[in-house]
Amino acid sequence: MRPRALVRSIVDASELGEDGVLALISDVLTSAPTTIVGPGDDCAVLEVTGPVVATTDVLVEGEHFVQDWSSPYDIGERAAAQNLADVAAMGAHPSALVVGMALPGHAAGEWVRECARGLADRARAIGAGIEGGDLTRSRGGIVISVTALGDLRGRTPVLRSGARVGDAIVIAGTLGMSRTGFELYDAGRMTPTGLAEEATSEKPVRELAEACAAVFRAPNPPLHTAIGAAARLHAMMDVSDGLARDCQRIARASGVSMCLDSTLLAPDCQRVAPLDELCRSTAWSRVLRGGEDHAFVATCAPDAIPTGFRIIGSVESASGIDVSVDSQPLTGPLGWESLA
Amino acid sequence: MRPRALVRSIVDASELGEDGVLALISDVLTSAPTTIVGPGDDCAVLEVTGPVVATTDVLVEGEHFVQDWSSPYDIGERAAAQNLADVAAMGAHPSALVVGMALPGHAAGEWVRECARGLADRARAIGAGIEGGDLTRSRGGIVISVTALGDLRGRTPVLRSGARVGDAIVIAGTLGMSRTGFELYDAGRMTPTGLAEEATSEKPVRELAEACAAVFRAPNPPLHTAIGAAARLHAMMDVSDGLARDCQRIARASGVSMCLDSTLLAPDCQRVAPLDELCRSTAWSRVLRGGEDHAFVATCAPDAIPTGFRIIGSVESASGIDVSVDSQPLTGPLGWESLA
Repeated sequence: MRPRALVRSIVDASELGEDGVLALISDVLTSAPTTIVGPGDDCAVLEVTGPVVATTDVLVEGEHFVQDWSSPYDIGERAAAQNLADVAAMGAHPSALVVGMALPGHAAGEWVRECARGLADRARAIGAGIEGGDLTRSRGGIVISVTALGDLRGRTPVLRSGARVGDAIVIAGTLGMSRTGFELYDAGRMTPTGLAEEATSEKPVRELAEACAAVFRAPNPPLHTAIGAAARLHAMMDVSDGLARDCQRIARASGVSMCLDSTLLAPDCQRVAPLDELCRSTAWSRVLRGGEDHAFVATCAPDAIPTGFRIIGSVESASGIDVSVDSQPLTGPLGWESLA
Repeated sequence: MRPRALVRSIVDASELGEDGVLALISDVLTSAPTTIVGPGDDCAVLEVTGPVVATTDVLVEGEHFVQDWSSPYDIGERAAAQNLADVAAMGAHPSALVVGMALPGHAAGEWVRECARGLADRARAIGAGIEGGDLTRSRGGIVISVTALGDLRGRTPVLRSGARVGDAIVIAGTLGMSRTGFELYDAGRMTPTGLAEEATSEKPVRELAEACAAVFRAPNPPLHTAIGAAARLHAMMDVSDGLARDCQRIARASGVSMCLDSTLLAPDCQRVAPLDELCRSTAWSRVLRGGEDHAFVATCAPDAIPTGFRIIGSVESASGIDVSVDSQPLTGPLGWESLA
């Protein structure tokens, strides 16, 4: 766990002013080699080949993160990860993040610094930088908005609409771990000091719980795998709202039916099943409907599965049923929907 | 004034879900010609020449806008305008906005639609589109984050650090009008139905008050003028935090002294002076320290003033004094600082 003492006070950001906060975090922000002008002017300036991709996500305290569960470093990592996953899901190379933060008085200067460090570490790991931002007061909780930019370097983007009948449905990354972590925190079984003693005495189960909690706090989507595979993929998304709902989106955008095979998803269920007794939903539900691991679901020719991906189903012609499992239409809530 | 009845209720965004809200606003969002993929995939995809510029701003309800003063359309226009000004201040052509919104229950679907219309109208007027976004719940007030992207089309960016000794300081756009509008609202003299009857009976003063209030609600920076002039300018910023503070930023970035001439700023003072009796600060203070008109302050060779700009001072060698007026160092608060 990271230093949680930093979450509150030390220096109130509102006493520092925007320039003061920027001075406090400037050394953790490193620019990417393709950056011509980093933070500090009206805009960042980036050298690109093009086409350029852009995506934005807003994280709201109490809605997307809880300070009792996540350190500011975790929150920064998470904000970066989910946006970088969107860029990689297009097959693009992430080049820059620009970050807006609305901060209440309790968000200390050190809070901002830790969050910026989480953002910058994740960006740097994939060759991007934090190239600009805006800091302002919030009258509610903390709000973080991250916009990620990427460079396709002359390649065609991998869209949701490219799935073809006969394709394999493939996946890279984990499913259900973030949801499992969330349910552990939400039930009070996972705490800032780790899994509650009374939850279980089995060491492998405890380690699995810690791993799921870590994915919930800050997912680790396999960005390099997705970007490296892009040339072979016909369609791709990162799984943010659950495998079922995101497969539905590919189905509708591509005009196809997405047919999942439960035996091919069994390894994902088996991975999180040891925590079933500590969770309120089944392993199968967490794998199928839990989002936010930001795995990559894609489709490609069945004889050209890219490295790091594995098959979980097949693309069939449109049948009125967007998503099925073992030929049974998927019913009930398909997964998480924002605002819903 | 625009339909203020739309501000509250009709359809609670939280009942529509993110897809429902997107469906409600999709017809007001038009993509730019350079957009390959607009909203609806993991990222927007833009065709660019490059280098690319990027900037982001966060607008917080109660901090940057007040619903009793501004319609959702105004708020959308304002959010777009201040980001588009940052792009133009680099000499770049705005190409896309991506928009994040955190919405409490009272932000109706129609509220989002009106705000999106304001954003889209301003983007379209300069050749850009709304190419992506994120909608989420807020537990506090409304938070809008806008990221603007622009294309330098092979040109060198105009930075804050480019001012040269011997340059003229030039400006395009208005100064002090936004601050004047704010003071009228803040004193209760300007209301949603216009200037209070008892404030003045003089028609020109009433019209001026309405004009200043409109600039406060949604500024109109001369974007085309700034972009068209870029090749002749050595340094440029949009005035967001007040002329004094923003000149200080140019002074420090360029290692020069910015020497303003009060006689050359007299027309700006004279424009807003008729409202002095209704404001709490002097015309001179509003012109020098009031930000958010998003005028463009720049420097260039004194014999090559671009069309649409006029001289307000000169760039001298660094003297330890960042900004002076009529050779007197500027003292006291230099202008608005976020978080301060």
